Amino acid sequence: MSNVELDQLRQKVDEMNLQLLDVINQRAELVQEIGRVKEKQGVNKFEPVRERAMLDLLAENNKGPFLNSTIEHIFKEIFKAGLELQKDDHRKALLV
Amino acid sequence: MSNVELDQLRQKVDEMNLQLLDVINQRAELVQEIGRVKEKQGVNKFEPVRERAMLDLLAENNKGPFLNSTIEHIFKEIFKAGLELQKDDHRKALLV
Repeated sequence: MSNVELDQLRQKVDEMNLQLLDVINQRAELVQEIGRVKEKQGVNKFEPVRERAMLDLLAENNKGPFLNSTIEHIFKEIFKAGLELQKDDHRKALLV
Repeated sequence: MSNVELDQLRQKVDEMNLQLLDVINQRAELVQEIGRVKEKQGVNKFEPVRERAMLDLLAENNKGPFLNSTIEHIFKEIFKAGLELQKDDHRKALLV
């Protein structure tokens, strides 16, 4: 396979990266919205049961090539980042 | 906002999780393909310059709410998982 074909594969990876970026940020906006709702309701932001349910749904739907353990690791990072965003919003809300 | 609305928001998050799962695995397949090409060419799998270029493209296109540093952190985990997959394929190829 030539380097032209390698470049084509890489271009597809870049396109997928941008697609992921888009969905990850859309998801973050939803998580912020959920944070605002919980803030009003005075509910705890981090719910391990909900996190487990999300991971289980992902494992059920995972067709690979990534193993469930890898998917779980990646998504836990995404969840953690979302939680940090909610905390930042909370801090900003307190400063207003 | 009622819990019904909270449930609706969570359902949307689940849908996005599944969408991310799908693209993350599609991306992994491409990375495996790239790994096979590099294997044939005897090229090194990890290329810091290429990783930096991917991260720069993501930063350029990042409209938030996640900061570039958060996006970089999440994607580095995805990149690392892809590289592990290539290494596994390499080990399997050696065993054949």
